Amino acid sequence: MERTYLDHAAATPARPEVIEAMLPYFQERFANPSAVYDLAAAIKDTIEEQRARVAELIGAPANSIIFTSCGAEANNLAIKGAALANLKKGRHLIVSAIEHHSVLNSARFLEKFHDFEVTFLPVNRYGQVEPERLRRVLTPATVLVSIQHASNEIGTVQQIPELAALCREHGVVFHTDAVATAGSVPIDVKDMEVDLLTLSGPALGAPKGIGALYFRPKVRLVPQIHSGIQESGRRGGTENVPGIIGLGTAAKLARGELEERARHLRFLRDRLVAGVMDRIPAVIYTGHPEKRLPGHASFCFEGIEGEALVFLLNRRGIYANTGSACASKALKVSPTLCAIGLSPDVAQGSIVFTFSRDNRDEEMDYVLIELPQAVERLRSFSPVWHKKMAAASGESR
Amino acid sequence: MERTYLDHAAATPARPEVIEAMLPYFQERFANPSAVYDLAAAIKDTIEEQRARVAELIGAPANSIIFTSCGAEANNLAIKGAALANLKKGRHLIVSAIEHHSVLNSARFLEKFHDFEVTFLPVNRYGQVEPERLRRVLTPATVLVSIQHASNEIGTVQQIPELAALCREHGVVFHTDAVATAGSVPIDVKDMEVDLLTLSGPALGAPKGIGALYFRPKVRLVPQIHSGIQESGRRGGTENVPGIIGLGTAAKLARGELEERARHLRFLRDRLVAGVMDRIPAVIYTGHPEKRLPGHASFCFEGIEGEALVFLLNRRGIYANTGSACASKALKVSPTLCAIGLSPDVAQGSIVFTFSRDNRDEEMDYVLIELPQAVERLRSFSPVWHKKMAAASGESR
Repeated sequence: MERTYLDHAAATPARPEVIEAMLPYFQERFANPSAVYDLAAAIKDTIEEQRARVAELIGAPANSIIFTSCGAEANNLAIKGAALANLKKGRHLIVSAIEHHSVLNSARFLEKFHDFEVTFLPVNRYGQVEPERLRRVLTPATVLVSIQHASNEIGTVQQIPELAALCREHGVVFHTDAVATAGSVPIDVKDMEVDLLTLSGPALGAPKGIGALYFRPKVRLVPQIHSGIQESGRRGGTENVPGIIGLGTAAKLARGELEERARHLRFLRDRLVAGVMDRIPAVIYTGHPEKRLPGHASFCFEGIEGEALVFLLNRRGIYANTGSACASKALKVSPTLCAIGLSPDVAQGSIVFTFSRDNRDEEMDYVLIELPQAVERLRSFSPVWHKKMAAASGESR
Repeated sequence: MERTYLDHAAATPARPEVIEAMLPYFQERFANPSAVYDLAAAIKDTIEEQRARVAELIGAPANSIIFTSCGAEANNLAIKGAALANLKKGRHLIVSAIEHHSVLNSARFLEKFHDFEVTFLPVNRYGQVEPERLRRVLTPATVLVSIQHASNEIGTVQQIPELAALCREHGVVFHTDAVATAGSVPIDVKDMEVDLLTLSGPALGAPKGIGALYFRPKVRLVPQIHSGIQESGRRGGTENVPGIIGLGTAAKLARGELEERARHLRFLRDRLVAGVMDRIPAVIYTGHPEKRLPGHASFCFEGIEGEALVFLLNRRGIYANTGSACASKALKVSPTLCAIGLSPDVAQGSIVFTFSRDNRDEEMDYVLIELPQAVERLRSFSPVWHKKMAAASGESR
């Protein structure tokens, strides 16, 4: 049985070109870039080249990129780092209710340990933060607003330029988590007017263990990993040189392929979505129908449990997710799906398919055969589904 | 010209066996371990195997290891994580004056942002923390003591069992940074009675980008990278799977080779030290003459600058350091060398050689030819040295 892997938001294989570029830096070019001799200077130069490549992907100047160990660390640095650097202004923070755990839990940390007040901003039924809603909760004590570029759980892309402009107008630092969008949605930090932006290596085809934070040069940050003066004093610890090479290489590739990639992903997604809506009754296509990630299709199937569906598909060689990667074990019902107004019953039937450039049309055909069967099978065992059917037939009588 | 690399404390090549073990996890076995399908479960199992291997190196139970992105992050988690988890007890922290930047700067962060009082404990002329001195500064408000196992700058190994026992007696959490010792000095966390212990991947032959923190199960920690429930909720962010495989593999190799490695390193060190003391006048062998890292030789040469010496040796293919890796650019005079009572003049002439299992006897011969020449050459240009010589000849007249 072939593997049909459709969980690229959770993890994606590193690209062969990326691994090849990294390999010399494990053994031959291993020196610590902070040392003062020639071996180190050559590595320092290479790091700066990678920094420029990552910056180019998002239209930023090279010296505005901080390398971190992952997207979650970059989000932690953005939220806690910017909040703690602006304590004199106030202790109010705004995040959307559907942010990644790394944002939500960084905000909760500030609440608990630094007396911050956090506003968890509601979203509409498509998962969008409405600018007018944001405007109403901004206060003179607001130091930071963090709203993701897109959700890995429901695919919705936010109106970042409007939200960021509003913050700039009010002198509030604006952060966006672009882990889900980088590489498949164009990003230009100047056009978007963002102050801080999070990237993840794995999402771009680099290995796990590397991420980055863009910061607008005027934005102050208190480091969150304290050590030496690496990363211009904003992130201590010896640089993960191979990881940095990997991210730089991946960013360069992603920049060249963005349009083609987005087109391919959109094609696969549209096929899958049309097929599912056509073949499976009682399904909700979650997130925004148009303003969404090109490679993201998410559904809630009434009467079943997403986790059971993932297991059943797994047995047919199909790999999908029931929500965001780290939420899947932590919580029974996703806060994101609650935030868009789904009842816990419906939210439980959540499934998410995320594509990569390596996925093929035939894989969609296969999913469109297997998925309806799996849903039907699970519903045949489901008391909730039978009750719903009985009620519906009662109504129609 | 061959390369004689003697800066293994700053960076060391990853071992071929380690890279080989990691490679499948970049592309074939790439799944996110938090997912619920079979691909992920297999990776989760492998991570737990690596955790057990790392634990075995230090005599710990498998579930007491947290993987981090580097030794610096592990030190940050130990210091800030334990301090914030014990706020109810008090806000006093004790660290030695010669800790790594990641410990010192974490302590300073707690001072600045959490109203902690930090005692920077002095050391004796060998760089040792005397237990009696520690006893005198412990207070009922002391929540944490952090004293390194050994210094990468002067090589001195601390009397951790005595220091840790004292803390346990007083109910104070004890942390030690074992980045410099793991792999060449035996470590048993039970015998040493430590509560928290830091390891670095690269120091053991794994690549950059991975580290670990041992925690005694009763010790509470507030996570420092907030996200999902990875690492039993103590460190969020998707696991760096290849890095974890690398660290597990390196730890297993290190455990099997510890004695042989230590013997080899000690042999090289003793040869170098004897040769230097014999051939170069006006030199101080810094750190403890016996209680020191087997693969560590550090000196201060009067009348010269360590950085100039590093450059000159670099031109002869010899790679050495002037202090701790991240200190080298950050500060002119090392706080560690000041703490052991050296005058800034003398401390400036600091040079550190650190060995690995791949260094050979012939390399020591080469260094013992080149180093005296380099020191002599620099002294011939040095006004400080000429003044000293003139004074000495005046005295002897």
